[in-house]
Amino acid sequence: MGGTPPLSPLAPAAFPDLPVIGGVEFATAQAGVKYKGRTDVMLARLAPGTSVAGVFTRSATRSAPVLDCQAKIGGDGTGAAAIIVNSGNSNAFTGRNGVESTRAVTTAAAKALGIEESRVFSSSTGVIGEPLPHDRITAKMAELSGALDAGGIAAAARAIMTTDTYPKGAAAEVSVGGQVVKIAGIAKGSGMIAPDMATMLVYIFTDAAIDRPVLQSMVSANADLTFNCITVDSDTSTSDTLLCAATGASGVRVTEKDTAFIDALRGVMLDLAHQVVKDGEGATKFVQIAVTGAASDADARVHAMSIANSPLVKTAIAGEDANWGRIVMAVGKSGAAADRDLLSIWFGDEQVADKGWRAPSYSEEACAAHMKGEEIDIRVDLGLGGGTATVWTCDLTHGYISINADYRS
Amino acid sequence: MGGTPPLSPLAPAAFPDLPVIGGVEFATAQAGVKYKGRTDVMLARLAPGTSVAGVFTRSATRSAPVLDCQAKIGGDGTGAAAIIVNSGNSNAFTGRNGVESTRAVTTAAAKALGIEESRVFSSSTGVIGEPLPHDRITAKMAELSGALDAGGIAAAARAIMTTDTYPKGAAAEVSVGGQVVKIAGIAKGSGMIAPDMATMLVYIFTDAAIDRPVLQSMVSANADLTFNCITVDSDTSTSDTLLCAATGASGVRVTEKDTAFIDALRGVMLDLAHQVVKDGEGATKFVQIAVTGAASDADARVHAMSIANSPLVKTAIAGEDANWGRIVMAVGKSGAAADRDLLSIWFGDEQVADKGWRAPSYSEEACAAHMKGEEIDIRVDLGLGGGTATVWTCDLTHGYISINADYRS
Repeated sequence: MGGTPPLSPLAPAAFPDLPVIGGVEFATAQAGVKYKGRTDVMLARLAPGTSVAGVFTRSATRSAPVLDCQAKIGGDGTGAAAIIVNSGNSNAFTGRNGVESTRAVTTAAAKALGIEESRVFSSSTGVIGEPLPHDRITAKMAELSGALDAGGIAAAARAIMTTDTYPKGAAAEVSVGGQVVKIAGIAKGSGMIAPDMATMLVYIFTDAAIDRPVLQSMVSANADLTFNCITVDSDTSTSDTLLCAATGASGVRVTEKDTAFIDALRGVMLDLAHQVVKDGEGATKFVQIAVTGAASDADARVHAMSIANSPLVKTAIAGEDANWGRIVMAVGKSGAAADRDLLSIWFGDEQVADKGWRAPSYSEEACAAHMKGEEIDIRVDLGLGGGTATVWTCDLTHGYISINADYRS
Repeated sequence: MGGTPPLSPLAPAAFPDLPVIGGVEFATAQAGVKYKGRTDVMLARLAPGTSVAGVFTRSATRSAPVLDCQAKIGGDGTGAAAIIVNSGNSNAFTGRNGVESTRAVTTAAAKALGIEESRVFSSSTGVIGEPLPHDRITAKMAELSGALDAGGIAAAARAIMTTDTYPKGAAAEVSVGGQVVKIAGIAKGSGMIAPDMATMLVYIFTDAAIDRPVLQSMVSANADLTFNCITVDSDTSTSDTLLCAATGASGVRVTEKDTAFIDALRGVMLDLAHQVVKDGEGATKFVQIAVTGAASDADARVHAMSIANSPLVKTAIAGEDANWGRIVMAVGKSGAAADRDLLSIWFGDEQVADKGWRAPSYSEEACAAHMKGEEIDIRVDLGLGGGTATVWTCDLTHGYISINADYRS
């Protein structure tokens, strides 16, 4: 990789102060998988009885660790569990060798922690198609298991970064039946971000007690409204993994009826998803695209993603140009139902197109002022029905080219 | 627009010497639709009896001139015909106003040439959503009709350019039953290029005599193998138009059995399509992507286009990086059938991946040498069946960002 990209201008002021989640401990190490002089492995130990749910990339060429996680998730073991993650190498497209590397890492973690291998979930992120030097990771296992610390989540967020320019964390507290439960999550992701899970690793922890099938359905439904609604470059990773662990340490039982908890969990997921977009490679603008009036929610999503993935829309935003003609183009090419003469478009509060024609009230100056901001709101109404969708993306800049023409991911 | 982009490094050495096609005359003018100091309108007059076939954008937000052409094509009139084209304004998303502008232009051309309005085909290319100042075009109609010249095709190719860095032309001669017929074509297109016709205007002329339905089926079939197999940025124009006019001036009748003619016509179309890609905004590399072994031809095309449209693949090529991991990623996300452990990949003659794993013979140096060339060949074999497809694209560079973050198209 060609040096460290500069901090995203959309980065939060500081990493948030994440609460300790009972039943989870973290450790990190410098294994030298690829990067030098920084941590690149993180281990999380989860207390006995923890429920683990997951959402994964739907790529047909998914990585060995993803396939291993998918095979294990739902096994409903009750012993202690663990998550082990390395950055620098994704162990994807590595054939039988990759399966063996994954097994070597999970077996070593299981042994070091005295838990069942079937309860060890692993992720790898970084370059595709190169053998994972798993012995560098297993050599650090004793150091990792000896360093476990309930307060280590911020360090864990740093260890999993690749081209990220800042670590990503989010948290919530929510009252369930008068008792407080906590949620804290971390994520990595910057490029190769698109729906069906982005190039992302996301780990979320809560001290609520939740049956695994219930936790899985909460996480899956929330992923469709958060991580599956973001895109940086329309490219989908072979490694995307979201794991959510409910330790039960609070003693508070949460069920599918606890909508306040589900909302709080979705809030943490949306916060992390937005942070990933704001760290999109080369991003200088955070863009929300809301589509209303579509023939169906599915159609609204197709239009929104067509706009969000259009290189011409994204470069216009980079150039602070309220180029609504490119929005029209992206709606027209999406394949979902549209009637040119019913289409209306807004940039911020400014209506630029009204039922297929430039809005009479359109002010280029007011629009230009909105485009100069860091947060761009685009709204499109199809005028056809009640379908809606909201997605988030970033602009396409010289920074994206610089990062990706040099970095081998 | 922010100045003229530099000439594409992939530009041909010179505009080809196109033959005069009997039955066609051209004129150009400086109407000042948007550009200053250059021609921006071209008129072609077609002899009585000319058959005209067309292929058009499938965008749901297609422009007024496209809808007008589609309504007229197939009308099978026998009088003289005309094509009138302006650059600088696409007359797209201009509501009722746009319909009236198109009608004003075609009516004026019909009157100036003394032909039926139903035989006048028009195209407009340039900025979307701004009213077409059609009176600037109609004001030039007498000048245009007085300047018609059988040798004017090269000037016509220049008048229709927008962000193109060079005019595009191609020609062929073919023997049909021992008699020679000629084909000559011109095109414009540079950005907003994707299948279902790119942001392209293409006009092809032949002196063969061909019944209109036969000509239409030849053109449609050839378009699926040429213009519908190229992509610059996955964005689809609202104005794409290909018109093919057979004047019959040679007196040589061509039917659907004349495969040599069909092949020659496809050769002209493929040449023009490749020239469009080579003038892709910011392009420095011309990329051929051939997919074999797919479950079907349709699947092969989905994989090929997923690779060709991937920003991460295109930036890697810009960086001269044989990053085959990104090819794996693009195959994996495409949605078409793939088996990771049967996938093989070549860059040029160098095999980089063999059945899901780095090829034993892989030489990074040999690959790097291929990547430094201006023409990049990528081949992917799925190992599943007999489906094949070949598509063409260019790399994604800083030049694309510079052109599109400033230019309002």
